[in-house]
Amino acid sequence: MGVTVPFKQVDVFTEKPFKGNPVAVINFLNIDESEVTQEELQTIANWTNLSETTFLFKPSSDKYDYKLRIFTPNNELPFAGHPTIGSCKAFLQFTKNTTATSLIQECGAGAIPLVITEGVISFKAAMADYEGISTEVIAGYEHAIGLKFIAAPALLHTGPEWIVALVEDAETCFDANPNFPMLAEQTKQNNHAGIILAGHKRNASIKNSFEMRAFAPVMSVNEDPVCGSGSVALARYLQELYKFEETTKITISQGGRLQRDGHIVASIVKEADGSNSYHVAGHAITVVDGKITL
Amino acid sequence: MGVTVPFKQVDVFTEKPFKGNPVAVINFLNIDESEVTQEELQTIANWTNLSETTFLFKPSSDKYDYKLRIFTPNNELPFAGHPTIGSCKAFLQFTKNTTATSLIQECGAGAIPLVITEGVISFKAAMADYEGISTEVIAGYEHAIGLKFIAAPALLHTGPEWIVALVEDAETCFDANPNFPMLAEQTKQNNHAGIILAGHKRNASIKNSFEMRAFAPVMSVNEDPVCGSGSVALARYLQELYKFEETTKITISQGGRLQRDGHIVASIVKEADGSNSYHVAGHAITVVDGKITL
Repeated sequence: MGVTVPFKQVDVFTEKPFKGNPVAVINFLNIDESEVTQEELQTIANWTNLSETTFLFKPSSDKYDYKLRIFTPNNELPFAGHPTIGSCKAFLQFTKNTTATSLIQECGAGAIPLVITEGVISFKAAMADYEGISTEVIAGYEHAIGLKFIAAPALLHTGPEWIVALVEDAETCFDANPNFPMLAEQTKQNNHAGIILAGHKRNASIKNSFEMRAFAPVMSVNEDPVCGSGSVALARYLQELYKFEETTKITISQGGRLQRDGHIVASIVKEADGSNSYHVAGHAITVVDGKITL
Repeated sequence: MGVTVPFKQVDVFTEKPFKGNPVAVINFLNIDESEVTQEELQTIANWTNLSETTFLFKPSSDKYDYKLRIFTPNNELPFAGHPTIGSCKAFLQFTKNTTATSLIQECGAGAIPLVITEGVISFKAAMADYEGISTEVIAGYEHAIGLKFIAAPALLHTGPEWIVALVEDAETCFDANPNFPMLAEQTKQNNHAGIILAGHKRNASIKNSFEMRAFAPVMSVNEDPVCGSGSVALARYLQELYKFEETTKITISQGGRLQRDGHIVASIVKEADGSNSYHVAGHAITVVDGKITL
């Protein structure tokens, strides 16, 4: 392409550099989307080697603040959690916007409302549908994870198709050592993205506090350090299990086994019409700031 | 650490962005090495998720131009090929040095002489020792690669312990589809890093022109896009096979199956004392240029 545009690599779900989940964000706000091909975007995302690389474009209408396209090294995604929060942080910095309290992201999954409160960015999940799974599939996952689940796991459609499973407590979750080849085989057979494993923190000062891990060996990521869509899946699963009757916050720690220290707050929000919506909030910090030559 | 220092992500063995092998280079030329811990450097390299991240420090003596420390996401390396070329490019740009024609890099493997000629950077390999392997081990590798080798493969000690194997021609090499789990098992059993597969280009305009691929599934990299140490290993292997009596250039293409387009020139140089030395040359281009906050 021969152009140089602004670039940031943002660490998400952390306030400390290198403790969260990184996303590369490329500022194409001044490039017409028709000037770049799918292949060019994919090539860049393959080269950064991060779980996701995103591209900020002008939105298709003034209903939205920007359009976001999200790529893994191998394909484009309609939506992803930590890239949405990291890209919002980058957008605010690229546009020197220090006052916005809400934004609308246009992306493959539609319009994603974002709220900015005291440096914390939250998004409303586009989908969080719950589906039971068979005892046979559950047994396969227990075998691959090497632990007994304390409630029936379920399949959560959150963009990625996550299985959510609860274990005894936070320590059990932290100590889990899945058999990754076996887990890859299980998820592949069932067309699932991977498994979100969580355990309640018994002695936490905050109620509904969980340790979480995200395993997706079939997607070439044995363990994702800090996972936004996984936290949506966990919150939706817990709502099915515990039938919270009021707006409820789930605080999640993730990444310790990978020397990360991610913090997510997932909320189950009671809407005026009686329905539930699911929101994910976290900090983000720009670690690499510069330009990229294409 | 709370400091911000210059950062570049350089694409190596290419003149076109995203077609080579990237390395992240962090400029610690103004940071005393004692101020950063091994753990801090490892944490950064784990976060970038690139095959290598390097740190430029002031050298320990004026015999050297700079000191380079090289990290994979999981450990520190005494030496690596494409990171050496990419880091030299970054050093020249960081120090606004447009006239240097030779430099000495200090690194874990000792002093590495570098030559800069018309934008091409070359290094002299610190080691390239040849060792035969058993027919039993060869058979295991043929089975894992799924092809017959046209000469007995060997083990090349080039920093990484590469097996080099030749197949019928460049097309056969390009089309190879190794069984990665089987190859991981073979290399693990034998304590090898992986396998360098190469095939001669029959119709190339340049003599000694090869297609090369580098498979290292045991190091969590099924295929490395463009591999400097692998090209040293190939040149040393070809010297053993063909007994070149004059200084000889081996031109190598690599990365096509990964949508890269890397170009390496590996040279077997006849030294005045009758010994051979091995040199690797390539272009490098800075793709991301900015700062990193630690």
